[in-house]
Amino acid sequence: MIQKIALTGIKPSGTPHIGNLMGAIKPALELTKQYRSLYFIADYHALTSVRDKALMQSQIYEVAATWLAAGLDPEESIFYRQSDVPEVFELTWILACMAPKGLLNRAHSYKDSVAKNLEAQRDPDFGINMGLYNYPVLMAADIILYGAHLVPVGQDQKQHIEIARDLAQAFNQQYGEILVVPEPVINESVKTIPGTDGRKMSKSYNNVLPLYVPSKKLRQAVMQIVTDSKGIEESKDPETCNLFQIFKLFAKPERLEEVKLAYQSGGLGYGTLKQELFDLVDLFVSPGRAVYDQYIKDPDRIDHILKLGAHKARAIAHHNLAAVRQAIGMAR
Amino acid sequence: MIQKIALTGIKPSGTPHIGNLMGAIKPALELTKQYRSLYFIADYHALTSVRDKALMQSQIYEVAATWLAAGLDPEESIFYRQSDVPEVFELTWILACMAPKGLLNRAHSYKDSVAKNLEAQRDPDFGINMGLYNYPVLMAADIILYGAHLVPVGQDQKQHIEIARDLAQAFNQQYGEILVVPEPVINESVKTIPGTDGRKMSKSYNNVLPLYVPSKKLRQAVMQIVTDSKGIEESKDPETCNLFQIFKLFAKPERLEEVKLAYQSGGLGYGTLKQELFDLVDLFVSPGRAVYDQYIKDPDRIDHILKLGAHKARAIAHHNLAAVRQAIGMAR
Repeated sequence: MIQKIALTGIKPSGTPHIGNLMGAIKPALELTKQYRSLYFIADYHALTSVRDKALMQSQIYEVAATWLAAGLDPEESIFYRQSDVPEVFELTWILACMAPKGLLNRAHSYKDSVAKNLEAQRDPDFGINMGLYNYPVLMAADIILYGAHLVPVGQDQKQHIEIARDLAQAFNQQYGEILVVPEPVINESVKTIPGTDGRKMSKSYNNVLPLYVPSKKLRQAVMQIVTDSKGIEESKDPETCNLFQIFKLFAKPERLEEVKLAYQSGGLGYGTLKQELFDLVDLFVSPGRAVYDQYIKDPDRIDHILKLGAHKARAIAHHNLAAVRQAIGMAR
Repeated sequence: MIQKIALTGIKPSGTPHIGNLMGAIKPALELTKQYRSLYFIADYHALTSVRDKALMQSQIYEVAATWLAAGLDPEESIFYRQSDVPEVFELTWILACMAPKGLLNRAHSYKDSVAKNLEAQRDPDFGINMGLYNYPVLMAADIILYGAHLVPVGQDQKQHIEIARDLAQAFNQQYGEILVVPEPVINESVKTIPGTDGRKMSKSYNNVLPLYVPSKKLRQAVMQIVTDSKGIEESKDPETCNLFQIFKLFAKPERLEEVKLAYQSGGLGYGTLKQELFDLVDLFVSPGRAVYDQYIKDPDRIDHILKLGAHKARAIAHHNLAAVRQAIGMAR
């Protein structure tokens, strides 16, 4: 039996934070143990919103360095930039011809934008570009081009995999069983990582613990974790305490029990625990940080890795696209 | 001063007829005298509606053989298949990111489909696929990829050139003066060629004079030209006679005057004039027919010509796309 392919798309939009690492990057990297794994930087998806050349480039290097630092092994898996495999755009057009427009009208992200426009009494399509609207078709091509069987996604991306499935099936119905119909892998077990204010850690809430930044910056963020105003001696509830919830992610079970008791009995101040948490997080990220710093100082090395990955990815893409072209009457 | 580029897209949808030859093919081939001319078979546009592999392929060969037979010189101009220059799809995505969705909502062909659906009390997007909806973006990329200055189109296609202009300008505004903003060339002087029933010659009216078919088939079509039922001796009005209007396109001026007089004075029957018209049309198409027959019997030769053309086209496409990629931060 052939080894199944798992494919992970990485949008280069802002420096990843600790929530990304624990909630998405680490679980995605686990897939390499079981599957032939492809990871790609979805730079052309970012073009729907990033119009600044320098920003585009720095975001690509940051995200590439982050994944490498987090443990992505470019020998064991295939790591490439979407833009280095232009075959995906030809497949996007082919799939677009199979895609009923109504299917795209029902895409959540598009519908959300329309709803916001209607609420603001604007034209329903105000501010929506064709890249955003076509996004699910490109994403389908990203997956189908490699014959990916499995795509790890968050719950919010599940519909996009369903669209990819619909398009692969529509193509197969017309031209025979040529495309692999992908399956989503929703990692249910991964808990939402809380941010410094207790809500889900997210850049848009401005509540993140940054990842591979200098210790000093990390310390600042940890110190900003929001708590109530209870004094050192007061009894505290670990279950409702946001600081404790974050601490839980990093502390050893024995230490966790001790802190839980100290919370309840009083005598442990938030400031002290924050310092301990900082030490733990700093230790946790420091090996990755060293790797990250090396890569970010050497963009040529990142380019080189991504080129080699693209070379491997293109071989698969070329083979699969040739089969598609053959089927539709566009043999080269 | 550099020579300007003129680009003509050819949709492979059904065998071209005499109306196509006189109204579109010949005027488009005239451009070679003045401009660096590119002609491409828009096979991936046809995919929005043609889902049959064999039909797709035969239509491509028929249209290629027709243009070659009509005088397209693949040495002097660049003649290629759209699908042989996949760079166009990458540019399509880039332009899509610059295209407000509202712009595409206002495209005539899309609006017409929506209007028909609403009239039939169906969902506005019923039967519309994303290829059809995105069609003007691909067409813009077809043009912009080659830095085409001039695009000869019918009045009905003028809006598509305006969309291409809008997208080139939007890109340039964001990234600097990189793209050529194309101009439409509307050939106002070309009269509509009447069909056998007096309406515009069009496949959809089933009133065409076929082009490079055997004489017998052409004769059948000429004999089916609709006239009134006036007898040989009766006086006839050349201005309102459809047969005479078609005859006008092929007869020499002297002969035209004679026939005009014979119409008015009576003594010339429609059957006789049809036979004369057939002889003229048959003579007119016979050199092309011989060339057409040679090509259609030898698809490998067509493939070879189109490959050579694609090679030249890709060199331009590659150069222009590299500049675009450089501008947006996707340098390879």
